[in-house]
Amino acid sequence: MKRRIVFPALLVLFSLCLSAQKATWIWYPGDFEISLANKMQNRRTERGTFFPVFWKMDNHYVLMDFHKVFQLDQPEKVSLFVEGEYNVKLDGKAFEGSPSEITVPAGKHKINIKVFNQAQVPAIFVKGNKVVSDSTWLVTFEDKEWIDETGKTSDISATEWLKAGSWNFNSPQQKPSAFALPVRRQSAVSNQKAKGAMLVDFGKETLGFIELHGLSGKGNLSVYYGESKEEALSTEHCEALDRKAVDFSSKTNYRFPLSKAFRFVNIQYDNGVNLDSVSMLYEYADLKERGGFKCNDAEVNRIYDISKYTFELNTREFFIDGIKRDRWIWSGDAYQSYLMNYYLYFDRPTVERTMLALRGKDPVTGHINTIMDYTFYWFIGIYDYYLYTGDLTFIQQFYPRMQSLMDYCLSRRNKYGLLEGLPGDWLFIDWAAGLSKKGELSFEQLLFCRSLETMALCAGITGDEKGKDEYAKLAADLKEKIFSLYWNPAKNALVHSRIDGKQTDNVTRYSNMFSIFFNYFNESQKQSVKNSVLLNDSIQKITTPYMRFYELEALCAMGEQDYVMKEMKSYWGGMLKLGATSFWEEYNPDKKGEEHYAMYGRQFGKSLCHAWGASPIYLLGRYYLGVQPTSPGYATYSIQPVLGGLQWMEGKVPTASGDISVYCDKKKIRISTVKGVGTLKLKSKIKPAGKNIQVKAVSKETYEISLNPDSTYEISYQAL
Amino acid sequence: MKRRIVFPALLVLFSLCLSAQKATWIWYPGDFEISLANKMQNRRTERGTFFPVFWKMDNHYVLMDFHKVFQLDQPEKVSLFVEGEYNVKLDGKAFEGSPSEITVPAGKHKINIKVFNQAQVPAIFVKGNKVVSDSTWLVTFEDKEWIDETGKTSDISATEWLKAGSWNFNSPQQKPSAFALPVRRQSAVSNQKAKGAMLVDFGKETLGFIELHGLSGKGNLSVYYGESKEEALSTEHCEALDRKAVDFSSKTNYRFPLSKAFRFVNIQYDNGVNLDSVSMLYEYADLKERGGFKCNDAEVNRIYDISKYTFELNTREFFIDGIKRDRWIWSGDAYQSYLMNYYLYFDRPTVERTMLALRGKDPVTGHINTIMDYTFYWFIGIYDYYLYTGDLTFIQQFYPRMQSLMDYCLSRRNKYGLLEGLPGDWLFIDWAAGLSKKGELSFEQLLFCRSLETMALCAGITGDEKGKDEYAKLAADLKEKIFSLYWNPAKNALVHSRIDGKQTDNVTRYSNMFSIFFNYFNESQKQSVKNSVLLNDSIQKITTPYMRFYELEALCAMGEQDYVMKEMKSYWGGMLKLGATSFWEEYNPDKKGEEHYAMYGRQFGKSLCHAWGASPIYLLGRYYLGVQPTSPGYATYSIQPVLGGLQWMEGKVPTASGDISVYCDKKKIRISTVKGVGTLKLKSKIKPAGKNIQVKAVSKETYEISLNPDSTYEISYQAL
Repeated sequence: MKRRIVFPALLVLFSLCLSAQKATWIWYPGDFEISLANKMQNRRTERGTFFPVFWKMDNHYVLMDFHKVFQLDQPEKVSLFVEGEYNVKLDGKAFEGSPSEITVPAGKHKINIKVFNQAQVPAIFVKGNKVVSDSTWLVTFEDKEWIDETGKTSDISATEWLKAGSWNFNSPQQKPSAFALPVRRQSAVSNQKAKGAMLVDFGKETLGFIELHGLSGKGNLSVYYGESKEEALSTEHCEALDRKAVDFSSKTNYRFPLSKAFRFVNIQYDNGVNLDSVSMLYEYADLKERGGFKCNDAEVNRIYDISKYTFELNTREFFIDGIKRDRWIWSGDAYQSYLMNYYLYFDRPTVERTMLALRGKDPVTGHINTIMDYTFYWFIGIYDYYLYTGDLTFIQQFYPRMQSLMDYCLSRRNKYGLLEGLPGDWLFIDWAAGLSKKGELSFEQLLFCRSLETMALCAGITGDEKGKDEYAKLAADLKEKIFSLYWNPAKNALVHSRIDGKQTDNVTRYSNMFSIFFNYFNESQKQSVKNSVLLNDSIQKITTPYMRFYELEALCAMGEQDYVMKEMKSYWGGMLKLGATSFWEEYNPDKKGEEHYAMYGRQFGKSLCHAWGASPIYLLGRYYLGVQPTSPGYATYSIQPVLGGLQWMEGKVPTASGDISVYCDKKKIRISTVKGVGTLKLKSKIKPAGKNIQVKAVSKETYEISLNPDSTYEISYQAL
Repeated sequence: MKRRIVFPALLVLFSLCLSAQKATWIWYPGDFEISLANKMQNRRTERGTFFPVFWKMDNHYVLMDFHKVFQLDQPEKVSLFVEGEYNVKLDGKAFEGSPSEITVPAGKHKINIKVFNQAQVPAIFVKGNKVVSDSTWLVTFEDKEWIDETGKTSDISATEWLKAGSWNFNSPQQKPSAFALPVRRQSAVSNQKAKGAMLVDFGKETLGFIELHGLSGKGNLSVYYGESKEEALSTEHCEALDRKAVDFSSKTNYRFPLSKAFRFVNIQYDNGVNLDSVSMLYEYADLKERGGFKCNDAEVNRIYDISKYTFELNTREFFIDGIKRDRWIWSGDAYQSYLMNYYLYFDRPTVERTMLALRGKDPVTGHINTIMDYTFYWFIGIYDYYLYTGDLTFIQQFYPRMQSLMDYCLSRRNKYGLLEGLPGDWLFIDWAAGLSKKGELSFEQLLFCRSLETMALCAGITGDEKGKDEYAKLAADLKEKIFSLYWNPAKNALVHSRIDGKQTDNVTRYSNMFSIFFNYFNESQKQSVKNSVLLNDSIQKITTPYMRFYELEALCAMGEQDYVMKEMKSYWGGMLKLGATSFWEEYNPDKKGEEHYAMYGRQFGKSLCHAWGASPIYLLGRYYLGVQPTSPGYATYSIQPVLGGLQWMEGKVPTASGDISVYCDKKKIRISTVKGVGTLKLKSKIKPAGKNIQVKAVSKETYEISLNPDSTYEISYQAL
């Protein structure tokens, strides 16, 4: 009987209690992330040469104090596992040496573990019954715990403590410092052998460790990697290579130490060397695909699938830009990955890890990735993170790092209160020929303004009321300036820049399209900008999927899903027609053949697998299935399915409390909801009907239907 | 003929050129120092338990770019040794892989080496003919060297570069990360054996690694260390111990991994364990004693010698406080060591290293060692360093770190513009019973004022004219406030503190004695303070050599050398009479027997070998031999020998350009000078006379004699 009356809420509570007693490795939040990013980003090579980043890399705190107060009904034995030298204190009194097991008596007791580790992140794993390490422990890098000449310990109330960082290292053996992505073996689909050479095709873009089987003899061996066959064959110009001085008297398997991106590998070796075959170990982040999309159009389904694969390849320890060349964390690229992630994996740790790695530590000595716009994407990413996940902890823990980064930006305003490029700043916006970076760019002010709004929001969340008001005022002032300084009524557009205090004639798409989905334009501005800029072929076209993402989002936000569907098929479909097995860093349909592989003045400089190429994941989930949160963590959300020319579509959108599923054709919609209050929004010829629904007519052709948590609906209607 | 007309200046230039071509390991300045300090300070243990500091420990930059432009007449082969992963660029173009040798062609070429090292400080050793690594290379932790989509490299002029740091690692094998102090073997002077026990006496305070000889059998062994015999015998209360689980089937020598301070070791072991004998490896910094002092008084000579030994023991990788307990770098303690060093070793690297380790990195999150006064000693130490050495490089390189630390202090002023203790601040001043730390302490404002003066000086040196004016004004305002708020004309003294905006009645020695040698008092204030405070027994007495240093310095500065000599003999002589073989952290003549060993509420808590006990080195050199710089780097200096009751004395004072030697008795003075212009100052009954001297009568009984560089003088006079 008793077991039957457990309510769901109690079950949750019960499982929370259980999970609070599951031990996990913990550290100072952000330190593991920074250290892992250092490792990952310094694995980049270019034609065999170590190729590190050109901005400041931070380092972990070498000395860390972890503590928690426990209330125990009975004494317990507690095992300790520590990365570093350490001591353990019970109620302020140290145990002798560095014990691997202690006994904590019954009653209320405080445990402190202090750890020094110069080479790696100080981390602990504590495993008792109730006494276990988890994210409820507090950590500090300066405990300021001094004693006076009489032996009295000082008041340490002044010190700031954060909640410990953790991930999923849930056994003593899974040391954080030893973390590596998992691998699985993959075989080649073809292998052309010649004397002293092999050309191996793995069938599609992939990433991993090349393994040579049956290697023997003596001599030199080189591996030339290619995302294209042409690249692999171009031993002089391929971007990635490996060399090995072979000296094996019997057949040996040899694995290269660094994983590489490729579809083809071209292996060349001296006469004295013998080689049987080649395989690879595919290296991946072990995340679960939760979102999905399928429709009647096979090309769109293929675009979605290749987007997913592109995103899978670029989702690694962190969200990276592209797998061949950089394999770095770029804030602008990562920002788009966060959004795609909310519609595919909904994996919070990878978002948090990426944001922490990008931010690094104080002092701020430059923009994130040295790029002004990339600093702002970092702020805006926090806004989105909060909206999609509802998680407050990140903001509460890292608001000081948000403040100091914003202080840096504010300190660099010019006499007009605007940001222009100062020495050492890179103004990126997009890869686009001839894009002017002179003067004060409207695009940068726009992102700056949105970042200030994010700061106001986060100040409110952390209880910094003064900061909230200040940031809100700064944002409002800047927004007013943007419109008074950059809006050109004759052009019906925001102009690109001001130079020497004067508006230029130059109109580009960037600030105009962002103002649409930032909701900075009023309705009439939106409509005029749509025609004067977005659908105007005389405005310089965008050739990167990076900015196509926002361009198409702006159009979707204005209900142009039919148009966007055609663009998607033409642009992403265009890459597929050229044989793409993943989406590219840049695609210009006017180029031909090998021209598509060139970039940065290098024959094979372009990445053929770039995260920002995967945006259909986001566009299809948010603007076709039409699911989006309207308050933090999907406490409320809307579903506005738009077929955009399709016959039918179905799919799932993940949230923190489960997946929302949507099926839609021209006559009916099936939905299953999750926790939180949803609203189905429809533009419909015929008033929707279904079991248990309340239909509210918003206008003659627009209807809203409230959706209950954890329910399923089938609604008939007729699409406009 | 040609060789004979080489002028000294040319010789210097020539030797500079030669030395510029000597390769040495280089790194980002401050990073090796911080990393070494982390290692050293984390070797502290307390009764076998790891005992780290309680303030923020910084870490090195993990990614470093080193570069230099060379002009070569002919191509040369250059060998590369690197601590870390690296790449090498010649004129911006990378070599493949990480070559250990490159060829640099003739002509003007820029070499960049970029190094990543998470665990240790990135460092390089470059050895060609002209192309060698030394402190003329430039380093940065963010080169901001990005390329645009056309492959063009960005302008990197904005990045700040510092001169590389180096020390004396002059061969490829001497890797900075492997640095360890040298050791030499020392034997015990007595060894009392009993069953399962040995009590070993090394004859005097010492520091090193205990080595057990002929150890065999199975069982536990413990070593209890004692600065006194009592401590070594007190297995329950001795401050340092080591344990070893012995399991050796044949006789083995075993060395404990951490060096310890002791005179006695008490070794206790189980029945199954056998041990033949015990020795030690004395661990020391290999510095040359250049200063010296000898006089007719054997007790004074003994005080000087034990001071030297005390200082030797405490001069290690850095200037530390004491060798038994902390072995940490404490800014207030180190400040005195700098001054002693200028009169004994004149070793600049140890001063620089200590100042860099203390300062750490931005952001500033607390006072140095958490102690407000210790922050200020750091600034004042730079003032002295510049005065004694004339070295500008430290200031030029680290002025930004001075600024940010001063910003921290300035940001913590209260509404009166004064500093009081905020949460997390420790106001130390001295170990003294009942010393009030409430309100705003005059002593802290005084050090703050001197620090602001130092900032103004350094701002001037680095060309920060705005900063120079601002700091000078802040200092002048604060000095005015000190006298208007703390000077009590009735008491003829600065009072100790203000509480709730009101002067307190409390007079202590600290701010009064500092105002004397800071020259903040006018002559009449000095004289009145001498009687109302310094020679007034009703003012709380000082019981630490730490503050005795300044008390005696203030008296010496007012010509009270006779009085100070008596005090020195009584105070330091008092410790000698109690059997001290090094000078103590604290000495109160009223205490008896074992009471002398207690401190911090612990039976053997007191350090019996504390750097601040060695101040006679400084007092005798500066105020008896009377040598001090009067402008930076001894460009000008004064010699004012004062016998202070002695019959005769002789000694040496080191400078950057050699040792100044002084002999003085009641009738004659012999001097040999160095580079720079000296002035001999004498209070004399009879007008001084000697070969080649120009005597200027300053008053009826005061004479000044100009001393030429690199000359010797013998002058007859009669002491007052």
